[in-house]
This record gives sequence, C-alpha cells and structure tokens, in this order.
Amino acid sequence: MYDLYLVTDINACLGRQLEDVVRLAVEGGVTIVQLREKDTDTKVFVERAISLKKILTSYHIPLIINDRIDIALAAKADGIHVGQSDMPFALLMKIMPKSMIKGLSVETIEQAVNAENYKVDYLGVSPVFHTPTKTSFDEKPWGLEGLKKLRALTKHKLVAIGGINKDNAADVINAGADGLAVVSAICSADHPGEAAAELLKIVKNTKGNYGQIS
Amino acid sequence: MYDLYLVTDINACLGRQLEDVVRLAVEGGVTIVQLREKDTDTKVFVERAISLKKILTSYHIPLIINDRIDIALAAKADGIHVGQSDMPFALLMKIMPKSMIKGLSVETIEQAVNAENYKVDYLGVSPVFHTPTKTSFDEKPWGLEGLKKLRALTKHKLVAIGGINKDNAADVINAGADGLAVVSAICSADHPGEAAAELLKIVKNTKGNYGQIS
Repeated sequence: MYDLYLVTDINACLGRQLEDVVRLAVEGGVTIVQLREKDTDTKVFVERAISLKKILTSYHIPLIINDRIDIALAAKADGIHVGQSDMPFALLMKIMPKSMIKGLSVETIEQAVNAENYKVDYLGVSPVFHTPTKTSFDEKPWGLEGLKKLRALTKHKLVAIGGINKDNAADVINAGADGLAVVSAICSADHPGEAAAELLKIVKNTKGNYGQIS
Repeated sequence: MYDLYLVTDINACLGRQLEDVVRLAVEGGVTIVQLREKDTDTKVFVERAISLKKILTSYHIPLIINDRIDIALAAKADGIHVGQSDMPFALLMKIMPKSMIKGLSVETIEQAVNAENYKVDYLGVSPVFHTPTKTSFDEKPWGLEGLKKLRALTKHKLVAIGGINKDNAADVINAGADGLAVVSAICSADHPGEAAAELLKIVKNTKGNYGQIS
C-alpha cells in the first residue's frame, strides 16, 4: 500500500487544480495520497479533503490527512499523518478511531526509538535527502546510511520522503524503505501520471515483484 | 454562563503568561473562556489547551476552543467555537460529542437566519463594533441597532464581541446581548482581574440581577 505515496502541495502543482493532478497521479500508479495543507482555513481544507476522498474512493486509494484529526474525521479519510510538532501521538491515539491509518514522521534516531512504543502503521523517514519543499534548513537528512540504520532498528514500515526522484528511488528502496513519498516529483511533473508510473515501476522492479499483486 | 466571555489572544497579553492572565481574569469574574490561537503548531496549541483546562476546571469555568475540534477533543474542553471560515456547522455536528457547547460567529443577517436551523448554544455577534483585534477591515460591524434586529430575529443566546469596553458594555446588554465577549479589554488591561470585575458588574447591574445567582 505504501509503494508510492503522494503528498500534496497545491503550490507545487504549477497552477493546475489539485484534484486533476491527484487523479492523473493515481491513474499513473500512486498507491496512497496524503492531503497536506498549511495556512488554509478549516472550511477550505475540509472541502478539499471531501473532494479528494470522493475521487480516491472511486480508485480504492486511501486518503491520509496531514496533522488535522478534525479534518480526517469530518472528511471520513482513511488515516492521519502527524509530525513531531503536531498532535502528540499518545493524545492522537485517544481521539482517533482505531481503524484509521496512523503515520508519524521521525527526524532523529531518538524519535524513532520512542515510536517503537506506538501503534503506528508506518514511520515517515523525514527527510531522507535535502529537499526544496521544506523551508527549514536545520533538518539533517537521514541519508541512505541513516535509513539503513533505521531499518535495522525499527519494526515499523518505513516511508521515505524528501528529495526522492527517479534517479535515487532504487537506492532508497534498497536501503530499506517500504515505500517512497514524493511531493514535487509528481505534483510539479509535466505529466504527473507518467512520473508516477515511472516511479512505481522502479519501486516494484527494485522490490523484485514487478507484475505481481503487491 | 455567557455573562463575561474571555477570548484569549496571547499577543495582547503584554508579555505576560497567558495562564496568569486567564487566572486573574477568572478570579475577577470571567464566566467562560475561549482559547483562540492562530498560526500555532498543533502540539503547542493542545498543550496550552490542556494547561488552561486544568486551571479552569479548578474554578468550574468552561473552556471553549476556537475552530479546532481536534484540540477540543484532545484537551477534553467543554466546547467549540467556529466562525464562517471554519468547519461548516453541519459537519461539526457529525463529529462533535453532543454534550459539548457549540458556538457560531455570525457576521450577517443571512448567516443568522441560516443558524436558526442549527443546534448552536450561542451565536457570536461579530463584530458588534469596530475593533483593533481583527485585522480584516471589510467586516461591517453590527452596531447596537443591528444587535437589536438580531435579538428580535433569533431564538439563540447572543454573545457580542468586538470593541466592547466598560463605556459601551451596558448599551450592548440593553440592546439584547446575553453576554459580552472581550479580548483586549481584559488581556491588555493593567489589572486583568479588576477589568473583569468591572465588566461583570456592569453586565449584572444592567441585567438587573446583580448580587443574585445567575
């Protein structure tokens, strides 16, 4: 399910409608979608979530909401993704339905060790490489070596994010990621569907199960 | 319960701790408190909500959270207040526990008419006067005449907000408000407790029940 994980950024869509980019990306092969909004009114955020949920349901693709449990509940999304400055995981567990997918970003080994105690469905390995999407420059990327170390340390599924593209995708899977998360590699691609298809092919080939049902 | 409604603004507290200002305000006579945060990380927001909830519980004063149902749920707050650009009320009703207090801001007659269909506990009449707190200048204040019109129109309790101070407080109650909401009149007062006591006295005197249990 985590093979190719699209994280949306409406500002990276080159002026195209977010819904259109997501639809093309899913038709190309994206296996899960996270709606991420920053500085958006709750009303607009929830309307966008409901609109994406409707599209994604028709493709049987899960919708994850970034940070906002209220939006996830209201839009009947399939899950939530939180970072270290979002809702603390222990609180999140208390108010989230058990059936929802729960993802957590980890930026350090210490955070990953803490996450061993949580019933997370996957860890976001953030960032795996330097990336232009995040404006904070004090984040130290995990790198391929850091990812390998994390793979050895944790039982959780790992979704790598940050600076991933077709040239480094195979290396990230080989280093232990269960899936690749991308923003601009799809949102800003001339052809989001083709970009998704190409990335998914690399993931599946690298995992050695291309053509099989994953 | 709505007699004197404090809406927090950490930037209006003149560098004092929000918790300290709230405590003084409640000891002075505030009857309900709304935590309002903008551009604050979810983690900080929820921690602040939990901290205020603890303080307010000891005074038997309800805590309302602005906009964010996730924060209200996680902090076990007593209610939620939404504006017209927040979660649509119909969606809010689906995900909020029935026992929680629900407030809705109305800026126009049309919005107030729509709100007749909702199970709101009170309407925020916003803004009743021009105010320096809100930076949007395209809002037309209700004014005392508008408030009277609204009083005649709606069955809901009315909490007026915007530019209220000790000089106009009695007029606002006489025009039909069930309570006064203030931000800077308390948060920015030299003595938040004294400011609250003075405002509460005006409300009670004007309602003609000063000294009685309300």
